[in-house]
Amino acid sequence: MTLNEVAAWLKENDRYLIVTHRRPDGDTLASAAALALGLKALGKTVYLFPNAETTPRFDAIATPHFMPEGYAFDHVVTVDTASEDMFAIGAEELAGRVCLAIDHHPSNTFYARMTYVDSVCAACGEIIYQLLDILGVPITQEIALSLYVAIATDTGCFCYANTTADTHRIAAALMDTGIDTGEINKALFRSKTRARVELEGMILSSLKFYFGGDVCVVTITQDMLESSQATDNDTDDIASIASGIDGVRVGITIRENGDGTCKVSVRTTPDVDANAICARFGGGGHAMAAGCTIASPVEDVRRALLDELKHHLLCPSGGAV
Amino acid sequence: MTLNEVAAWLKENDRYLIVTHRRPDGDTLASAAALALGLKALGKTVYLFPNAETTPRFDAIATPHFMPEGYAFDHVVTVDTASEDMFAIGAEELAGRVCLAIDHHPSNTFYARMTYVDSVCAACGEIIYQLLDILGVPITQEIALSLYVAIATDTGCFCYANTTADTHRIAAALMDTGIDTGEINKALFRSKTRARVELEGMILSSLKFYFGGDVCVVTITQDMLESSQATDNDTDDIASIASGIDGVRVGITIRENGDGTCKVSVRTTPDVDANAICARFGGGGHAMAAGCTIASPVEDVRRALLDELKHHLLCPSGGAV
Repeated sequence: MTLNEVAAWLKENDRYLIVTHRRPDGDTLASAAALALGLKALGKTVYLFPNAETTPRFDAIATPHFMPEGYAFDHVVTVDTASEDMFAIGAEELAGRVCLAIDHHPSNTFYARMTYVDSVCAACGEIIYQLLDILGVPITQEIALSLYVAIATDTGCFCYANTTADTHRIAAALMDTGIDTGEINKALFRSKTRARVELEGMILSSLKFYFGGDVCVVTITQDMLESSQATDNDTDDIASIASGIDGVRVGITIRENGDGTCKVSVRTTPDVDANAICARFGGGGHAMAAGCTIASPVEDVRRALLDELKHHLLCPSGGAV
Repeated sequence: MTLNEVAAWLKENDRYLIVTHRRPDGDTLASAAALALGLKALGKTVYLFPNAETTPRFDAIATPHFMPEGYAFDHVVTVDTASEDMFAIGAEELAGRVCLAIDHHPSNTFYARMTYVDSVCAACGEIIYQLLDILGVPITQEIALSLYVAIATDTGCFCYANTTADTHRIAAALMDTGIDTGEINKALFRSKTRARVELEGMILSSLKFYFGGDVCVVTITQDMLESSQATDNDTDDIASIASGIDGVRVGITIRENGDGTCKVSVRTTPDVDANAICARFGGGGHAMAAGCTIASPVEDVRRALLDELKHHLLCPSGGAV
């Protein structure tokens, strides 16, 4: 369906419930909030399904829109949610009942009656911006702030390869409303919790390099998580530490789960197939970013991965394997 | 003077030498390279004064434009250079001989015969973009790449408070040429040298908190610099680590100089005056970012600063001082 058809349907109907995805990020929560604000401006009744995993960072944006108990909605809309098993905790019962899914994931499973996917958009927030434009909703500072948060978080502040010229054009239009993006960005990108900083200190002090520096292994043990008091929110994007070091072709992050298993994340340069490495351990993903779970202690997991890597580093950049 | 007048003058004359500033960043080098490419497109002869401190990161952009020995130039132009004492090493003799300065620093000392300053621009690269537009130079991918590097580096990838809506509009226009900003950004913002990572590990593992977490002190000793083999390029923006931690109102970075003195950097939230703190030790700067040099060992410097801080943290956020 086209975005014009999405707009027409939203104009025609009323009493919406917007569902976000579990382990919510800025894009799903702030896109949902912006859509809610836009529909309210058109006189509609609209709430967000309360996402219990909303982090403090996005509280002020999302929580005011959470539905009151007993809200009688007519239509369920999802944003930034690729499949029904990704629905926010507690929203499982809404599976099979979604009227409209607005998404930018190419992996969307078309679970909704109507689906609009634009995978060229770096963030779902870009789609919501275009949609509000078609709907003729004026972009207030409140809407602009939400859309900016959605887009900035999904692009790593316009840094990731998903950022397009249109991403920047939309950011310009949002800034034209006068929002203080310097303050927003400082909170989102230039501040860290004390727990995160302590965890990073332990991680950076225990990096291990192999194959002449081609491979870097980061290990996160339960001890490290406990002594730093790091929560899940503090471990965001930890997997990019190992792969972000100059000269590293394979960055491996091994995280002890505390149940006898380890979660492994593998990031590679284009010449090494991360998916093939993880497939050997029952996992998978993309060519340059994949993962797997291995039921062994950390040391055994590291050894097994390094053993497997011998087959994938046939053209080492740093001498013989 | 207006940018139209700058353009007219550049069109009228020829045989330019472009000077960048010492300890060159992406903005000065890439703005200069973009201006050189633009003037060449107009048939002019133009070279950059060879900036000996050009870091490997900006080598490919700047070095090809460095002047050959014995280049007989007619006109000296500076970009992104606020004063004559900031001229690249070896360019001191050009003081008093600059025809045109193009700059975005409000502190520009108007040392040139003609000066164009636009301090609203986040990067000098934004001015060069506007200038090439007036000159009618088509933005090739090569020019776009240079201007993107100039703007992205001076805005921390569109993250700092200096970023404006126009910054994003220019970024969009540059991306329209088809340059791969994902690759550029990965090299500029998402990769670190092994030395930097090792130094950060030592720094993060030795953070000290005082006044109930209001104050964080980072210490960089000569031992740490030596054992990590970190160079000056590896210590960029280290001062933002302490101040970037949630809840920290005063972030202090003490760096041992190896000559018996310590370089101190103080970053604060708006309620604490960094300038006043550093002024007590003969230094100064801005209200939220200042510095000083103290001729004492690290431990004494820390003690003296904490002592002084008692007078500046009258309204502690975390209990009694």
